[in-house]
Amino acid sequence: MEKIKVGIIMGSDSDLPIMNAAIDICKEFGIETEVKIISAHRTPDDLALYAKTAHICGVSVIIAGAGGAAHLPGVIAAYTPLPVIGVPIQTKTLNGLDSLFSIVQMPSGVPVATVAINGAKNAALLAMQIIGISNKKIQDKFVDYKKTIAEESRNKNQIFDKKK
Amino acid sequence: MEKIKVGIIMGSDSDLPIMNAAIDICKEFGIETEVKIISAHRTPDDLALYAKTAHICGVSVIIAGAGGAAHLPGVIAAYTPLPVIGVPIQTKTLNGLDSLFSIVQMPSGVPVATVAINGAKNAALLAMQIIGISNKKIQDKFVDYKKTIAEESRNKNQIFDKKK
Amino acid sequence: MEKIKVGIIMGSDSDLPIMNAAIDICKEFGIETEVKIISAHRTPDDLALYAKTAHICGVSVIIAGAGGAAHLPGVIAAYTPLPVIGVPIQTKTLNGLDSLFSIVQMPSGVPVATVAINGAKNAALLAMQIIGISNKKIQDKFVDYKKTIAEESRNKNQIFDKKK
Amino acid sequence: MEKIKVGIIMGSDSDLPIMNAAIDICKEFGIETEVKIISAHRTPDDLALYAKTAHICGVSVIIAGAGGAAHLPGVIAAYTPLPVIGVPIQTKTLNGLDSLFSIVQMPSGVPVATVAINGAKNAALLAMQIIGISNKKIQDKFVDYKKTIAEESRNKNQIFDKKK
Amino acid sequence: MEKIKVGIIMGSDSDLPIMNAAIDICKEFGIETEVKIISAHRTPDDLALYAKTAHICGVSVIIAGAGGAAHLPGVIAAYTPLPVIGVPIQTKTLNGLDSLFSIVQMPSGVPVATVAINGAKNAALLAMQIIGISNKKIQDKFVDYKKTIAEESRNKNQIFDKKK
Amino acid sequence: MEKIKVGIIMGSDSDLPIMNAAIDICKEFGIETEVKIISAHRTPDDLALYAKTAHICGVSVIIAGAGGAAHLPGVIAAYTPLPVIGVPIQTKTLNGLDSLFSIVQMPSGVPVATVAINGAKNAALLAMQIIGISNKKIQDKFVDYKKTIAEESRNKNQIFDKKK
Amino acid sequence: MEKIKVGIIMGSDSDLPIMNAAIDICKEFGIETEVKIISAHRTPDDLALYAKTAHICGVSVIIAGAGGAAHLPGVIAAYTPLPVIGVPIQTKTLNGLDSLFSIVQMPSGVPVATVAINGAKNAALLAMQIIGISNKKIQDKFVDYKKTIAEESRNKNQIFDKKK
Amino acid sequence: MEKIKVGIIMGSDSDLPIMNAAIDICKEFGIETEVKIISAHRTPDDLALYAKTAHICGVSVIIAGAGGAAHLPGVIAAYTPLPVIGVPIQTKTLNGLDSLFSIVQMPSGVPVATVAINGAKNAALLAMQIIGISNKKIQDKFVDYKKTIAEESRNKNQIFDKKK
Repeated sequence: MEKIKVGIIMGSDSDLPIMNAAIDICKEFGIETEVKIISAHRTPDDLALYAKTAHICGVSVIIAGAGGAAHLPGVIAAYTPLPVIGVPIQTKTLNGLDSLFSIVQMPSGVPVATVAINGAKNAALLAMQIIGISNKKIQDKFVDYKKTIAEESRNKNQIFDKKK
Repeated sequence: MEKIKVGIIMGSDSDLPIMNAAIDICKEFGIETEVKIISAHRTPDDLALYAKTAHICGVSVIIAGAGGAAHLPGVIAAYTPLPVIGVPIQTKTLNGLDSLFSIVQMPSGVPVATVAINGAKNAALLAMQIIGISNKKIQDKFVDYKKTIAEESRNKNQIFDKKK
Repeated sequence: MEKIKVGIIMGSDSDLPIMNAAIDICKEFGIETEVKIISAHRTPDDLALYAKTAHICGVSVIIAGAGGAAHLPGVIAAYTPLPVIGVPIQTKTLNGLDSLFSIVQMPSGVPVATVAINGAKNAALLAMQIIGISNKKIQDKFVDYKKTIAEESRNKNQIFDKKK
Repeated sequence: MEKIKVGIIMGSDSDLPIMNAAIDICKEFGIETEVKIISAHRTPDDLALYAKTAHICGVSVIIAGAGGAAHLPGVIAAYTPLPVIGVPIQTKTLNGLDSLFSIVQMPSGVPVATVAINGAKNAALLAMQIIGISNKKIQDKFVDYKKTIAEESRNKNQIFDKKK
Repeated sequence: MEKIKVGIIMGSDSDLPIMNAAIDICKEFGIETEVKIISAHRTPDDLALYAKTAHICGVSVIIAGAGGAAHLPGVIAAYTPLPVIGVPIQTKTLNGLDSLFSIVQMPSGVPVATVAINGAKNAALLAMQIIGISNKKIQDKFVDYKKTIAEESRNKNQIFDKKK
Repeated sequence: MEKIKVGIIMGSDSDLPIMNAAIDICKEFGIETEVKIISAHRTPDDLALYAKTAHICGVSVIIAGAGGAAHLPGVIAAYTPLPVIGVPIQTKTLNGLDSLFSIVQMPSGVPVATVAINGAKNAALLAMQIIGISNKKIQDKFVDYKKTIAEESRNKNQIFDKKK
Repeated sequence: MEKIKVGIIMGSDSDLPIMNAAIDICKEFGIETEVKIISAHRTPDDLALYAKTAHICGVSVIIAGAGGAAHLPGVIAAYTPLPVIGVPIQTKTLNGLDSLFSIVQMPSGVPVATVAINGAKNAALLAMQIIGISNKKIQDKFVDYKKTIAEESRNKNQIFDKKK
Repeated sequence: MEKIKVGIIMGSDSDLPIMNAAIDICKEFGIETEVKIISAHRTPDDLALYAKTAHICGVSVIIAGAGGAAHLPGVIAAYTPLPVIGVPIQTKTLNGLDSLFSIVQMPSGVPVATVAINGAKNAALLAMQIIGISNKKIQDKFVDYKKTIAEESRNKNQIFDKKK
């Protein structure tokens, strides 16, 4: 399992508070992450280089978070054969609807696996599901994770019992 | 490679003209598909059964297409440890914005990998990328696919040469 | 009248501050409530069990509140012959437009009676109207309720009289 | 069962092609309908009279369809203690988003049970569910209806069998 | 000029902070106002009575502010031959887009003169323009008002002069 | 009554099929119209001249129809003390939502009385209501008009009688 | 003037019917064009090469048209010091709102000059205005162009004269 | 280079906090600015005069910021042969979507180069790119600017190094 690595790329350090949730899930599952700030617009050559080589540098899945005219995930997807998961970051003016449209509406041939606005946690969970296909340990951990959140959800009903 | 199978589920047979593009891509890549019409609302027990057992029946990735209050991909994701790819189907009244929101805005813990409205082709290509992580043959085919569409795009510039 | 019961289900305890308004109205009308946190995505089997049996356990109407890809009311409706009232919960990113579309745009055959975003109070009042069809006492209480809010609205004009 | 009647009101005869689906469902369930064209804006006094008296004229549920600034369901709800089901009719300019907002976003105290845009069929099915609470025959028919559409959905998978 | 009166109606006292701007403009122009809280949904009979009689009670123009499923201006317009100016009040969930659609998208035959979301001040200025057609004094005051705001706008350029 | 005139301005001759409905209503009420194609963007000086002088040339109300970045009504309102009624024309790309926002969201001090998208007929009826304040004949005609459309609406119920 | 050249890039040949309007305007103004189909997603390296070298190959302004997750103009802007004009192409599902958001909402540092959805003609006219700053001939032609469209607009009023 | 000047116009002094970013960029590039508050609606004659004469008073590019029914950039564009850059200002009710539509959706013949909502900084950078076409110094500065923001973006990755 040592070879599995998830790339977590964001367009700006202002996206980090949101993207941290993805880093945390990877840690929780014991999967190594490679976190980088690379901008599709400010450092496009860095991005092209990263995206072209990630799959030969041991990365299995790339998670990319961006806001506004959020081109980051799509441009990475243009260069890599790896699955790219896009996280639309909420914006101050259009609430992330701009980010969502810019990420999800990709043209035929170049998909981006889009999750909810600010859904960095789910992006990492999706990465775990993807890795889990060929890695029984991770899939088992995911099954356990599902059980845990189910149990947590069930336990919340105690607030009604206490009330009585 | 015989064991890899992609589940392609749709809520209604009216989604088939769109979802056929996903079936075609799987065929092109030599990946077996399991195509079913199961409705999250009309046959919820069938759906639960399918979603609970798919990963133990040889399915690696599930593609689910639905329109309107498009619950199908999310409900499948609730039951399976497999990655679920959601295809928002265009609707007559809200153009698929309803489908998109219903599929992409999943809560923490249960992601759906959402592609563009009517993006069934990309859903299958994403499935190929996912399978390709642990299957060099499929990843190579995907790399070839990218080269082909690049070449096709380049060749279209001939219309300008002809004009002269 | 002892047999009438309204089920009030929410996907997460974070919905409780909104859903409390529904509980309060039921109390005000003397109708028993059964309040539960069940998630369409985290505890789908619990939800199926609840929804399949509610009508044989004395529940007359089910109110379900959920936000984002709000599948809860629709999935309940898939399993029950009872009328299901959906409350779209406001979300931080899309303000509840996602919740509204996910709840109201149900396919043919499986309706959800949708109220306003965050409209838990009205959901319960609608339940009272529904129960009132066959329960003269409740309908009378509803008629009184209408009179009360009319009177309250009229009395607010006193602020203009005071001004003079 | 002779006393049950569903009022089906629409703002304009141009809404009839959509609203017919509601009439058909009521017939299918053997429930009498009272169909009328009354406009909240062109014939407001007729509407007030109808809405004030419907519950004493044997109507149990009122279904109201309207488009644009769709005030019809809300104005009926202002006058009646009966549950009012609103059908937002698709519009040429805003696709029915205007109708949906005008119907679903009712203020506290006066709910309208809103269904999907053009969802007249579901409006009637919801009426059947509502009536079914106190009418075992209708609830049984609804249970049968659910079985029928489930079976129809299942049977559509034959198109894949035929293909082979 | 003693006979001119502007009716200012709002659906709820929570609209008053916005609607006050309309009252202030009328005072500034020396036009009498009749301010009332009447709800299209809670006190529909009061509203019908007001709307039917306003034009014979000396009211020339009616300004109506409402939010959400904002039926107030349209229902007044249904009953009166007077011009009705609608003010869409901003809402917490949909920012007043619901109010705007509910007020502006009126059907053929029953117009409402809609102003901007929260545009109570402009509603009153529009009333002054309307009254000004047949009242030279008010039109002259409006011309003066335009000159004043032009001058105020010009004077703001002094901040740039000060900077130097 | 000879002096009353309604200016009907549109930004392009492509708006004429929609704006004709306004011309027809004015004719029906016996009110003279002055119809012109003037563009806020292509002939701004012509527009300024028209808008500055309309009120001294016998025009009482100006109706302006425009689509897209629909500045026409607002720019006219900038120059005239007369009430300006704006008709948002439906657009091919954004369905007239762009036109609506560009017309209705005017800043403090310069109102435009906005009607529904493509609502040219209602624009003219609103003009009649405005003129009717000081012109009993026109107000009476408007009252008659309301009676006529009410009667037409009522008569449409005959389709249900015929069915029986 | 021989050195001025406008680059016109589009993501797909399906954009050509829209983008032709830009080519035509350049021809009308006697400005050379360089038209290419390059995709930000299918041929990203070609795009980078083009965008990096355009300004040293005699191109003055780049017009880029794209639809959906329309990254083309933004990615070009990432690489070039030249002004980039983006044309959002209308899409079948979201009408071009996705294209508009993806093009206009660029992050700080990398602007794209966005025109209307399908506004290829205006994109070229904007290019002419930009070139006109330092090229008196082109600015004069633009002034003439404005006069021509003003005259055309004025002449359309003849349809009303003919009517009489 | 002394002759180059950028006009920066805003509709209201409330837009200044946003528009300051444009002024700062011009200063940074050593380009003179002419900043004015002129309203398309409150001081239309001032605006016409400014827009008609700017190009003969040494202005090369005009940046115009406005919110709501944001007519300012379009009306300037109507009068000037210069390129006009529009900055949609965020609004309290519709978040600037109204401003964006009012600015970007200009009709054929009269383009406005639109940047992101609140994108004043990018507006000025676009002006620098435009000026840079014929001014090697400014283009060189822009190239330097791009290098600087690229370096800043790269340096932000140090936060991850520090973590280790």
